[in-house]
Amino acid sequence: MIITSLTNSHVKEWVKLNDKKYRDQTGLFIIEGEHLIKEAEKKNCIKEIISCDQSLPADFYVTEEIIKKISKQVSIAKRIAICFKKLEEDLQNKILILDGIQDPGNLGTIIRSAVAFEFDSIVLSEDSVDLYNDKVIRASEGMFFHINIMRKNLTEFLNTLNVQGYTLIGTKIQDGEKIESLKNIEKIAIIMGNEGQGVKPNILEKCHHYVSIPMSSNCESLNVGVATSIILYEMFKNK
Amino acid sequence: MIITSLTNSHVKEWVKLNDKKYRDQTGLFIIEGEHLIKEAEKKNCIKEIISCDQSLPADFYVTEEIIKKISKQVSIAKRIAICFKKLEEDLQNKILILDGIQDPGNLGTIIRSAVAFEFDSIVLSEDSVDLYNDKVIRASEGMFFHINIMRKNLTEFLNTLNVQGYTLIGTKIQDGEKIESLKNIEKIAIIMGNEGQGVKPNILEKCHHYVSIPMSSNCESLNVGVATSIILYEMFKNK
Repeated sequence: MIITSLTNSHVKEWVKLNDKKYRDQTGLFIIEGEHLIKEAEKKNCIKEIISCDQSLPADFYVTEEIIKKISKQVSIAKRIAICFKKLEEDLQNKILILDGIQDPGNLGTIIRSAVAFEFDSIVLSEDSVDLYNDKVIRASEGMFFHINIMRKNLTEFLNTLNVQGYTLIGTKIQDGEKIESLKNIEKIAIIMGNEGQGVKPNILEKCHHYVSIPMSSNCESLNVGVATSIILYEMFKNK
Repeated sequence: MIITSLTNSHVKEWVKLNDKKYRDQTGLFIIEGEHLIKEAEKKNCIKEIISCDQSLPADFYVTEEIIKKISKQVSIAKRIAICFKKLEEDLQNKILILDGIQDPGNLGTIIRSAVAFEFDSIVLSEDSVDLYNDKVIRASEGMFFHINIMRKNLTEFLNTLNVQGYTLIGTKIQDGEKIESLKNIEKIAIIMGNEGQGVKPNILEKCHHYVSIPMSSNCESLNVGVATSIILYEMFKNK
């Protein structure tokens, strides 16, 4: 099937997926480019592929103009895919909880590091940035597809984890425990906070332990993607 | 002095500082907001302060419309400052070299981590992103002002470092040495590369040692800001 009209009903649907509301309604989202499509194919979550190059496999062939209309990128991809949103999987032993993270680049970077350092699940608070924002997916470098990610009311969720025997770990700028001291804990949930405000006080008070990253007194804090990655790295290294 | 006209010659000069070329010509750059101004004041590098609020100290008072014209931000700052570019300081024992880094957010994050983990100097290759890009300065959270940063021809610079007795460290995705093994080296230069291509082969071959960050085989690589921060953290922690 070859589509050439910008007003074609399929094209209109695809363009609307740039809005979070429409992604939520349909349970679909867009990815662009060969690297992400390759990672999505591994997880069988592609609904349809759209291409402006008839030499490549696709479900719909369209003009470059149409790809430009759907795309958020400056340099356009030859193939775009419409994917089904991720399904929630069961929790395992290593959970990363993100309370109110706002920057899509930070979330993508954290997803990439969580896969690198073998965390099983990421749980986003309800006020975190949308997981299906194109910048999140790009910054994750396709690792997005390789980890369980869910969105929860954190107050209730932490109560559940507590009952299930997870040790809840928060962070402090200083005077916390060493990250290495956590290496023998089997079921662990690490909680990281918003870029400016950190973890909300009512969430932080539920933690059993608090860790700190040693650093110079000249620097008030690290980027949240960096701080999270250092903690996950340290736990992976010491396992 | 109160300026109300968008065509005032001062206003025209300030707006032009959004272009790299004009920043290079004049040796000046712009910062926005109280946090950055506070950090810049500590280093005495402010030429003049511009404000749309006459209750705040400033050299020039202007309308909000003028601030909007100068600013790159969505929510406008009440004060903007014009600063003198950084002067090169002498090298000390811990140098971070960035070969072809392109993303301003990554560079800002790395600057912040370099201050946190007490590196002395950052050396950018000639093809790296402009240090005075507003996104670099913002992502550094003001740490920009607290570290020696210079731009060099890396091939020549590495030869100089070699003569001066620095140990040059590169990174490998796998099979490199442990970062902890470097802790007894006094004069060290760590070289990190571009987001997609890594360090250029002619630069990489000049290294004396190569380190790797342990990670899952499911993940090809980390974000360069994260990888750099983990290496600097590990060296700081083990010092």
